[in-house]
Amino acid sequence: MQAAAAVHRPHLLAPSPLRGRTRRPSTVRMALREDGPSVAIVGATGAVGQEFLRVIAARDFPYRSLRLLASERSAGKRIAFEDREYTVEDLAAPGVFEGIDIALFSAGGGVSRTHARTAVASGAVVVDNSSAFRMDPEVPLVIPEVNPEAMANVRLGKGAIVANPNCSTIICLMAVTPLHRQAKVLRMVVSTYQAASGAGAAAMEELKLQTQEVLAGKAPTCNIFSQQYAFNIFSHNAPILENGYNEEEMKLVKETRKIWNDKDVRVTATCIRVPTMRAHGESVNLQFEKPLDEDTAREILRAAPGLTISDDRASNRFPTPLEVSDKDEVSVGRIRQDLSQEDNRGLDIFVCGDQIRKGAALNAVQIAEMLLK
Amino acid sequence: MQAAAAVHRPHLLAPSPLRGRTRRPSTVRMALREDGPSVAIVGATGAVGQEFLRVIAARDFPYRSLRLLASERSAGKRIAFEDREYTVEDLAAPGVFEGIDIALFSAGGGVSRTHARTAVASGAVVVDNSSAFRMDPEVPLVIPEVNPEAMANVRLGKGAIVANPNCSTIICLMAVTPLHRQAKVLRMVVSTYQAASGAGAAAMEELKLQTQEVLAGKAPTCNIFSQQYAFNIFSHNAPILENGYNEEEMKLVKETRKIWNDKDVRVTATCIRVPTMRAHGESVNLQFEKPLDEDTAREILRAAPGLTISDDRASNRFPTPLEVSDKDEVSVGRIRQDLSQEDNRGLDIFVCGDQIRKGAALNAVQIAEMLLK
Repeated sequence: MQAAAAVHRPHLLAPSPLRGRTRRPSTVRMALREDGPSVAIVGATGAVGQEFLRVIAARDFPYRSLRLLASERSAGKRIAFEDREYTVEDLAAPGVFEGIDIALFSAGGGVSRTHARTAVASGAVVVDNSSAFRMDPEVPLVIPEVNPEAMANVRLGKGAIVANPNCSTIICLMAVTPLHRQAKVLRMVVSTYQAASGAGAAAMEELKLQTQEVLAGKAPTCNIFSQQYAFNIFSHNAPILENGYNEEEMKLVKETRKIWNDKDVRVTATCIRVPTMRAHGESVNLQFEKPLDEDTAREILRAAPGLTISDDRASNRFPTPLEVSDKDEVSVGRIRQDLSQEDNRGLDIFVCGDQIRKGAALNAVQIAEMLLK
Repeated sequence: MQAAAAVHRPHLLAPSPLRGRTRRPSTVRMALREDGPSVAIVGATGAVGQEFLRVIAARDFPYRSLRLLASERSAGKRIAFEDREYTVEDLAAPGVFEGIDIALFSAGGGVSRTHARTAVASGAVVVDNSSAFRMDPEVPLVIPEVNPEAMANVRLGKGAIVANPNCSTIICLMAVTPLHRQAKVLRMVVSTYQAASGAGAAAMEELKLQTQEVLAGKAPTCNIFSQQYAFNIFSHNAPILENGYNEEEMKLVKETRKIWNDKDVRVTATCIRVPTMRAHGESVNLQFEKPLDEDTAREILRAAPGLTISDDRASNRFPTPLEVSDKDEVSVGRIRQDLSQEDNRGLDIFVCGDQIRKGAALNAVQIAEMLLK
């Protein structure tokens, strides 16, 4: 039995079955084995925590032992995973990180700030999905397909923190980095179409509930968001900073610079929530230093890891959040020369990626896999 | 009794009552009166056609007589409007435009191409909401708040065509033009969040039906659109041209140049449908010739006609499609200096406007009002 059964996953939006790993043969059960690391999952009952389990199972990520941690409120819950049953433990209990090799954190910035250093002191490598340490100059911020070199000094058995970038950054840079390597991005204008899942499982539930209510002519329940989300869009609910950008937008600006190790790249972003469940869309306008025609761009994207191309002009089929839901790959399409820039120095693209999968859990597990090589 | 009762308007998405005209006193009933023009509405049973009636009533647009025209299929239908009952007539019947002063067309490009010249030959001024004549150099393309001067040679009693711009263009330029006048826009990058209504009343029905079906775990009905729209977004369904842009995007590019009478302005756009009912959102990035700081921009926008500002950073309240539904004004917010441009030469803004109202019917009726001055 897999964790899938325990995951909150409205059937309405999960048309595709759990994808198996496609790049390695899956005939041998590799997951639970003596030579694997001991793994802890912090925030095991959340949307991303549950996805960690699905991804570990799907990729046969090896583990010697598994410890599921969450807040005191969730402690005692039982979660079935790969033929065993686990009891969720209180992450604040003393000694929970003893003997842990890899701790996958996804329980919010506050939990990471309070508990990640404890795990590190126990010798664990923490892969942190929160924003707590992303801009810490001592902490690598990693998308394995983009900047694996940032992990050079991280070793299993030597406590460390590695940060998982924000979902919007991961999905954007999966498609933009291969183009950047070819023609150098000078400036990037991003507008996002973000799903409910970024605000957690309860937000997905609220979108579903609100939609039922609105269709029934009732006032929508607004607990997670302060306004109607069903049949509506709104500026991302992250706090607005003094410069007028919200925190979600500034993550795209700052994380791109850090991941590319390029202080000069100019990024602006407008982040908007749309009533979709678990995958983000992003409209990306690019300005390049060197010319890059769209055919070359398409070839580069076709060869890039972790990407699929969905760019069928004749039948008007391009990436959608629904089609990338539950998929590992980020989908890119609407690849076209930007008419507003000269000499093939601009491109417009549209990308979609599963926010919970590659935007969070998969990327973190891929980071953990790099530690095993 | 007003036309409102006859309009397809899902209660779920019409929280606000019909807005009365706010700028003129409405104590005197002005609409049906002897010194008004005789008016024909072509496409009277469609979403925009019905909105024409609502707008005429709300603004007390004067008319001596009213003729409701539609395809043969709808001929014979009865529509109650302002204490009278009208029978819808076949627009292809001979002589239907005899004696008509103003004909408001919104029945698609094909109908306009076939019948608009007949109305003009009868001496009518056609205000055409389709794309048929927008790029015709002989036809003014008008947003009354933006380029009223383009109407200089159009006179009541002298047959002519005036084109209503595309909804996305109107909503965008309502907010951008005042800034353009101050600092000259050199380049504009637009990403849209477009509602179902742009594809007509049947598309709004399909979105509602699909949402009910998906919530019930059923496969969604796809008649109007070729894929699931409920809880999904997709690239605008307009045909893709050879340059990779779709027709909707090229309307923004070309219409902006014509309306501003500026062949050099550089525009790129990515048009995306989101599951909202009747109002569009647009994320707009602007590059200016002259510096323009955000406080000045805010003052300019505050003083501009037909706009409201929704830009409350402290409470994270900005324009939403739901809040502008059934409203005349375009709402603008997220006004901020673009971090990716130097010397205050860039701004990011987010606009929302009712696609059926200002994006179509209201703008056309405003054009008709200019003929009465």
